[in-house]
Amino acid sequence: MTKDIKGPRLDRRGFMGASTLGTGAALVGLGAASSAFAQPGTANPAAGAPQVDFPEDPRMFGGSGTNRTEMDLRDCEVEGAWPKDLNGAFYRVGPDPQYPKAPEHVGDIPFDGEGHVSMFRIKDGHVDYKTRYAKNARWKAQAEARRSLYGMYRNPTTNDPSVEGLNQGTANTQLFTHHGKLLVFKEDSPPVAMDPLTLETTDPEYTFGGKLESKTHTAHPKIDPYTGEFISFGYEANGFLSKDVNVFTADKDGEITWSVTVEAPYAGMMHDFCVTQDYVVLYLVNMVADPDRIAAGGVHFSYDSKTPCYMGILRRGGDGTDIRWLTGPNLFCTHVMGGWNDGTKITVDMDGGEGNQFPFFPSLHEPWDPVKGTGYLRRFTVDLADGGNTYQAETIFPELTGVLARQDDRFHTLPYRWGFLQVTGPNGGWGIVDHQTGTSKIARVEGYSLSEMCFVPRTPDAPEGDGYLIGLGSSQAENGRSNLFLFDLADIESGPRAWVKMPYACVGQVHGWWADAEAIGAA
Amino acid sequence: MTKDIKGPRLDRRGFMGASTLGTGAALVGLGAASSAFAQPGTANPAAGAPQVDFPEDPRMFGGSGTNRTEMDLRDCEVEGAWPKDLNGAFYRVGPDPQYPKAPEHVGDIPFDGEGHVSMFRIKDGHVDYKTRYAKNARWKAQAEARRSLYGMYRNPTTNDPSVEGLNQGTANTQLFTHHGKLLVFKEDSPPVAMDPLTLETTDPEYTFGGKLESKTHTAHPKIDPYTGEFISFGYEANGFLSKDVNVFTADKDGEITWSVTVEAPYAGMMHDFCVTQDYVVLYLVNMVADPDRIAAGGVHFSYDSKTPCYMGILRRGGDGTDIRWLTGPNLFCTHVMGGWNDGTKITVDMDGGEGNQFPFFPSLHEPWDPVKGTGYLRRFTVDLADGGNTYQAETIFPELTGVLARQDDRFHTLPYRWGFLQVTGPNGGWGIVDHQTGTSKIARVEGYSLSEMCFVPRTPDAPEGDGYLIGLGSSQAENGRSNLFLFDLADIESGPRAWVKMPYACVGQVHGWWADAEAIGAA
Repeated sequence: MTKDIKGPRLDRRGFMGASTLGTGAALVGLGAASSAFAQPGTANPAAGAPQVDFPEDPRMFGGSGTNRTEMDLRDCEVEGAWPKDLNGAFYRVGPDPQYPKAPEHVGDIPFDGEGHVSMFRIKDGHVDYKTRYAKNARWKAQAEARRSLYGMYRNPTTNDPSVEGLNQGTANTQLFTHHGKLLVFKEDSPPVAMDPLTLETTDPEYTFGGKLESKTHTAHPKIDPYTGEFISFGYEANGFLSKDVNVFTADKDGEITWSVTVEAPYAGMMHDFCVTQDYVVLYLVNMVADPDRIAAGGVHFSYDSKTPCYMGILRRGGDGTDIRWLTGPNLFCTHVMGGWNDGTKITVDMDGGEGNQFPFFPSLHEPWDPVKGTGYLRRFTVDLADGGNTYQAETIFPELTGVLARQDDRFHTLPYRWGFLQVTGPNGGWGIVDHQTGTSKIARVEGYSLSEMCFVPRTPDAPEGDGYLIGLGSSQAENGRSNLFLFDLADIESGPRAWVKMPYACVGQVHGWWADAEAIGAA
Repeated sequence: MTKDIKGPRLDRRGFMGASTLGTGAALVGLGAASSAFAQPGTANPAAGAPQVDFPEDPRMFGGSGTNRTEMDLRDCEVEGAWPKDLNGAFYRVGPDPQYPKAPEHVGDIPFDGEGHVSMFRIKDGHVDYKTRYAKNARWKAQAEARRSLYGMYRNPTTNDPSVEGLNQGTANTQLFTHHGKLLVFKEDSPPVAMDPLTLETTDPEYTFGGKLESKTHTAHPKIDPYTGEFISFGYEANGFLSKDVNVFTADKDGEITWSVTVEAPYAGMMHDFCVTQDYVVLYLVNMVADPDRIAAGGVHFSYDSKTPCYMGILRRGGDGTDIRWLTGPNLFCTHVMGGWNDGTKITVDMDGGEGNQFPFFPSLHEPWDPVKGTGYLRRFTVDLADGGNTYQAETIFPELTGVLARQDDRFHTLPYRWGFLQVTGPNGGWGIVDHQTGTSKIARVEGYSLSEMCFVPRTPDAPEGDGYLIGLGSSQAENGRSNLFLFDLADIESGPRAWVKMPYACVGQVHGWWADAEAIGAA
């Protein structure tokens, strides 16, 4: 049923833009269709049972377009020339609200939906599709109660008393395969572990054998390509609103081998980070955790343009006391493309805007500015030997605006050539940047809006950038019906080399992840 | 990929009409969208892996609109006034081709798709949706091979050699709950047993503890409301193309207590039957099993207008030697609404046309005639005491054309007042006939095409016809998106009392079945 919207509120499409136009287009399609839905009958709800009824307005939490269905589709329809030797899985995760919010929380942000994981298992040109919710404490409590028990985004004061003290993580942001597990992340809580082939939740709160010192865990851990180590961090590590940041390493078998906790200048959003061979580079944006607004029943973050962003740099393997918090051009950066160090000289590439990129979080000092929110690739450089407290930043590839920067993950920590970006705007698509030549190009499919892509190595030991881009597209003419597209990076001009034609709009996503068969214990 | 169509072939919508407009509308919607699908890229399929690629033409076997996805959607969105005390499950089953046919069989009929079972589990105003394939021998063999192994409809000479001798049943026609099992039927094979709550296949070939004497089993068994007995039959009972018909009864616990085999005048389609308190009434239509066409690689049946239809009547509990095969007005009847006997006087109500209602089966002597194929309710009467060899038939409720007649199943075998019919045509919907007053009305939802409905008693011991009609509707404006509608028979004029708003077009169906919580072992 349509309800009044109080005040301006950006819909998911408005925010997620091209990054999740899969979701966005589906929402828009469904929204338009819903308005044509003539209410049948004159039934009186008061005479009936309690309702599970999401708002129809797609701008509201869980508005039409939620899917919520756990699915198994064996042998999807494939078209084009699927590589015979590609053997692995493409995973995706995104918020898919399990229940509508209580009326007083209906305006919560879309990113507060419970994490729904999808897998395209690809082998011998056959593709099986499977989706499952990450069944953590929150999911289970709500399934049992058959209603929403959590209030506003990361604000425990608004939760139902029955879930006091329970992990409120949604496991909806990114996933990752390491030491045989599929780990699903929400940055306010420990990972959820799933079986990488069945997607059954094997541990609703995975703490690396009890050794995870942080109460939280980023959605963007990294792997050292030489050692296979898992390097990660958690902010608000020692509790809600704490300034502590825990940084740790787990070895190839998931044993935590290094763990230090440092203090950030303030509690705020630290969505991604960069690891080089010698350093860990944190990035704190001025999306501050605001105790006053939280106490007043609001969401976790507010954008404070008067507060500086900080880059925090510490040596890998040290005790953390060397942490340095640097300032510089105040860029609102979210995702790391790549980075490395050459001695004390550190380079980190991130996408970011000059201002708030998350308009559904309140801005404290000014109205939201879409121009300042526009993302470009920014190259951050620091020479720690300078002894200063500043970083430098320049815009690279200014011909591209976009979000959700990625790279060939086998080259994280190292100097790299190839980067990928979700290019926004009318000519958007999957941007491919070549740092060696300074050129860029964009992979597009006419009539389809593309979600975030992943790089897939042609073979596990292929050279950097030799392989494919894989990701979902949403048909504009078919109410958001999904195709999974595979571009061969050796020939993006010919369009997608192969695709999976899904019979419906797949569940939306934030991020995706490619895992080779060996990483998921598959033949 | 679109392929040439050889010769005229009716699409599913054309045949199934209003009976499965859920499927039909979805097909049409997807078909239209598919034509707008610009082939991306110029990939060369020869360079890739084997394809799983259904034809795009919805007239062809498995054409666009197949869904094939096994689903779990907990707590569907409900709207309207769902009755708090309704506790049970609404099941549906229909063909949902597991794999595209080999090129030489691509023109097979849509009813040869593997059976996909859906359940709406309803309790306390909450509705959970679940779908699973019936995983019988055929499904498993094809899943293993990852391709279609069966050729034309019920023609084993066209199957892959690897499945020789294997049960070819698709379990795609109707389902039924009895002695704690969900039994799923295809009339050429034994039932598949599923767990009625999890939809896991518990027995891929259920033979009533090995005591089923027939190699086949109808899709339309009946229950005796006094004894709870399950009364059923199978035609071609002693093997492919045999004229034998096995008729049997199982008690409330599934123990077969009576089983006789009689011989029909010829091997032909016997889709439904009627049971009265004293008699079993079979009905053989002139859709004949044609060995010559089968040998030539065609489908199982041909329509032979020069061959008479027969009504076969035998006493319940006898040795079958009393069987009498009667002729009369040659009506092509498929489904039984109800029937009873008053001493030797037998009345059976069926829907039927004057000619072939299944145009996708070839007609031997004339082109298919849609007027003769139009279904009306027909009342068949016989007085066995007359000693003649004929039945009488008259058209009742001539204001209604339709198919898929149903009743309040608690009154099968007995004189009854209320009957239900899928009314076809532009003013179609769920027809409700009152045999007591001779009046009829139609339940409709504007903008929705309705699939076959089931009657749901208001309470397990409510009077005849006191309750609801439940069934799926397909939104014409939303590409076939499904609602599950519940009409209160006490007030159909107000439109549906409650509905479940599904986020997509649900898998198509042939028939549906309502089971009270007690029948499925649920609290």
